[in-house]
Amino acid sequence: MSPKKEYAISPKRSEDFPEWYQQVIAAADLAENSEVRGCMIIKPWGYALWERIQKQLDLRIKQTGHKNVYFPLFIPLEYLQKEAEHVEGFAKECAVVTHHKLEKRADGKLYPASPLTEPLVIRPTSETIIGAAFSRWIQSYRDLPLLINQWANVVRWEMRPRLFLRTTEFLWQEGHTAHANPEEARQEALSILNLYEEFIRSYLALPVVVGEKPESEKFPGADTTYTLEAMVQDRKAVQVGTSHFLGQNFSKANNIRFLDRNGKMEFAWTSSWGVSTRLIGTLIMAHGDDNGLVLPPTLSPLQVVILPLIKKEEEKPTILEFAEKLINQMEKLEFAGEKIRVEIDKREIGGGIKSWEWIKKGVPLRIEIGPQEISSGILTIKRRDKEVKEKEKLDLQQFLDKLPFLLSEIQQGIYSRAESFLKDHSRFIDTKEDFYEFFSSSDSSDKEIGGGFAYAHWDGSREVEEKLKEDLKITIRCIPYKSSYGDEPGICPFSGNPSKRRVIFAKAY
Amino acid sequence: MSPKKEYAISPKRSEDFPEWYQQVIAAADLAENSEVRGCMIIKPWGYALWERIQKQLDLRIKQTGHKNVYFPLFIPLEYLQKEAEHVEGFAKECAVVTHHKLEKRADGKLYPASPLTEPLVIRPTSETIIGAAFSRWIQSYRDLPLLINQWANVVRWEMRPRLFLRTTEFLWQEGHTAHANPEEARQEALSILNLYEEFIRSYLALPVVVGEKPESEKFPGADTTYTLEAMVQDRKAVQVGTSHFLGQNFSKANNIRFLDRNGKMEFAWTSSWGVSTRLIGTLIMAHGDDNGLVLPPTLSPLQVVILPLIKKEEEKPTILEFAEKLINQMEKLEFAGEKIRVEIDKREIGGGIKSWEWIKKGVPLRIEIGPQEISSGILTIKRRDKEVKEKEKLDLQQFLDKLPFLLSEIQQGIYSRAESFLKDHSRFIDTKEDFYEFFSSSDSSDKEIGGGFAYAHWDGSREVEEKLKEDLKITIRCIPYKSSYGDEPGICPFSGNPSKRRVIFAKAY
Ligand SMILES: [Zn+2]
Ligand SMILES: [Zn+2]
Repeated sequence: MSPKKEYAISPKRSEDFPEWYQQVIAAADLAENSEVRGCMIIKPWGYALWERIQKQLDLRIKQTGHKNVYFPLFIPLEYLQKEAEHVEGFAKECAVVTHHKLEKRADGKLYPASPLTEPLVIRPTSETIIGAAFSRWIQSYRDLPLLINQWANVVRWEMRPRLFLRTTEFLWQEGHTAHANPEEARQEALSILNLYEEFIRSYLALPVVVGEKPESEKFPGADTTYTLEAMVQDRKAVQVGTSHFLGQNFSKANNIRFLDRNGKMEFAWTSSWGVSTRLIGTLIMAHGDDNGLVLPPTLSPLQVVILPLIKKEEEKPTILEFAEKLINQMEKLEFAGEKIRVEIDKREIGGGIKSWEWIKKGVPLRIEIGPQEISSGILTIKRRDKEVKEKEKLDLQQFLDKLPFLLSEIQQGIYSRAESFLKDHSRFIDTKEDFYEFFSSSDSSDKEIGGGFAYAHWDGSREVEEKLKEDLKITIRCIPYKSSYGDEPGICPFSGNPSKRRVIFAKAY
Repeated sequence: MSPKKEYAISPKRSEDFPEWYQQVIAAADLAENSEVRGCMIIKPWGYALWERIQKQLDLRIKQTGHKNVYFPLFIPLEYLQKEAEHVEGFAKECAVVTHHKLEKRADGKLYPASPLTEPLVIRPTSETIIGAAFSRWIQSYRDLPLLINQWANVVRWEMRPRLFLRTTEFLWQEGHTAHANPEEARQEALSILNLYEEFIRSYLALPVVVGEKPESEKFPGADTTYTLEAMVQDRKAVQVGTSHFLGQNFSKANNIRFLDRNGKMEFAWTSSWGVSTRLIGTLIMAHGDDNGLVLPPTLSPLQVVILPLIKKEEEKPTILEFAEKLINQMEKLEFAGEKIRVEIDKREIGGGIKSWEWIKKGVPLRIEIGPQEISSGILTIKRRDKEVKEKEKLDLQQFLDKLPFLLSEIQQGIYSRAESFLKDHSRFIDTKEDFYEFFSSSDSSDKEIGGGFAYAHWDGSREVEEKLKEDLKITIRCIPYKSSYGDEPGICPFSGNPSKRRVIFAKAY
């Protein structure tokens, strides 16, 4: 028997995945719950992740011709009534502003005063208010395509909130576009889907399955909702982004009309798409381990942290000088088109505590520098993707030569591990029995864990969807978009009716 | 008589300044009112200005050791009650959320449903909710200083909104810090004041007067409010930023306590500070002219726009190729530490319309490129800070050599003009008669226009302040902070009582 291994996070993933997730967030100091139910406080390390996501995604959104704008937080209540399906979808979970003043009453307490004639809704998403502006801005085909995006906070009341994954207020980016014909609008929705996929693969090191949502899971008011579904380590799905082809639904509701090339008045075709702080929750659940967060080097706010090993005060100047020089040399190097991000942790706290902090925060590389490293010129490198105690010794020049390669190796390693995990837990299933077995683990240590992604035939009926939701809490995550994978017709194992192609079933967050 | 000059903006500044302001915003396509009263839609060119401000200011805030975070939009109503002055200041103008659902009634319309037990207030500023977190995060002097910042939207109900300058919802940055002693907290507030001043001077090309607010104009709950006051072209003041030393007021209200070095429990000293989208309104009013917006090159999203003069379709490829090469060469150059920002306007609309669009948007340099420019190798340069028709001819290499210098010249020119304006309309005033005359222009063409900044003595009483507010709509903008200017004692011209030093009186937005 080998000695019992110690981990930084308790419980381990295999013991209690949801609790492990909360503990990783606390250990990495990413966020915490505020006293307002469902609303989180994003702390510096968590917000730095969001800033990295914003920076990289914003670049891509701008490069494809979209301009950033800002629309009001408040939506007149009547706007939500304009699109029938949209009402049903969003009216349920809105924060409603009814007063615009507080007044102190006799008991010394504040009470809402000055009621609004028309209540205002905090935007759950901005299709309706942006649609109203589009109808003013768009007159002719010359005004099209209109391509805008905004970074904003939105509010959807959550009864069972979970940090990052499902919060009442969250941060996101929402793109809104209008086009002169349906092909172009659909193409827009699809090219954003590609953009998201590339970004999520290269910056979150996360493989995703892309496809269409079934009717039951569509965005309220969309013709087609395209989705990106990731698998996290309890084998559940997370919808990490969506892109909607809205057809003429919102342009009819908002009267977005234009004079086309032939002088005919026509309703525009629109799209909308977004990703949110949910990406951070997915990242944690997909890559984290029993020692905390694991960050892909492309995304990590810091790629290298230098930990000075100072035992005697008189060693300090030499060690810090050596470290500063090393930082200067590293900062001349690039990885993934950006300057390498490195910092020295000068805090006067124990080396062990300090080192564990950065492990829990998921920084890819740690370098310890003490008198021995300086005299020998040999650096001790520790990688977040290896065992905690594992070290690599490299002389200074070797290390500098190898640094971008090291980061790239870590990046690829994280991606590959997630990709293998996704493959290992994706399965073609052809009988109802196998399906129920797949999603009902008999292994008692595995209770919280769903089976993974089941590629199974489906007759297209709501009945089958509802039955599976009731029995197993399973939903159709998507009708995969890559046509080479499971797109042959077959028989629905639940009804015996014909099926056009396989769809992906999974438990989901 | 010279022929009548035509301007792009009607009315001119001298005719109707407030209306001119609205027209510049429309002509430059910066923003528009939404259907929600007091809430604006920031359009791409306006939002690009905000992004430039964010980028540069964020850099400076981070360089001085502050970390970005994100706190909830919602503040529990009871939080606002914690600090007595703060209640009085903010309770009046809050948006209050009272319900978290909408339900459809028999008439088919939506109504607020599911009332909240405790109403939520949309943050007018975040001292109270951040204070609650600080009280959890801070235990010991080792946790101090705590230096955070957030970029967020805030809401203060406005009865007389004006785009950018005063809107119900606005975008801003709010810094919040906690310190182990009062000196350090005050120093923080002052160094941020310096940071803002440097930023506003170098990026908005705007001179400001810095100083303290009198008691009556302080931030509700602050010990000292430091302010930056700019003068715009109708000679009114705009408060462009504030930095508050909060003493122990918020730490006592929120129980932010720490164990000091001597093992004694102590309340922390805090500061808070912010600038908002109001900076954009000030920029427009300070630098704009009768042809629209005028942007300082450091701030402008674009520094150079290339306008191809294509008369025949066959000239197009040569002209565009020439332009692209020119762009590549320009982008290798730097100005104010950043790559030069240049774009070509390829839209197929009339050259005159196109040129006027960029004039109205305030872009510093326009370059027209047609067959003549290509064959001669001589470029035609037009500067936004000169007359519309004025041009400079430079050969290609000369132009490239001179470009950073040209931008720097424009930058300095814009700053100098604003500085002269501020000086010309600032005056030491020693009698009540002169004071009233200064603020009561007898020139009828000047009706809307206040006198400027009056440096006058003040006895420190609320009576004088209230009388001047009533008679002239004049307030004390600040007690100037630079001690070399008007800080000798004297006699208050309004009461005859002694005065410690001169203060600045002005009309203000
Ligand atoms: Zn497994
Ligand atoms: Zn003047």
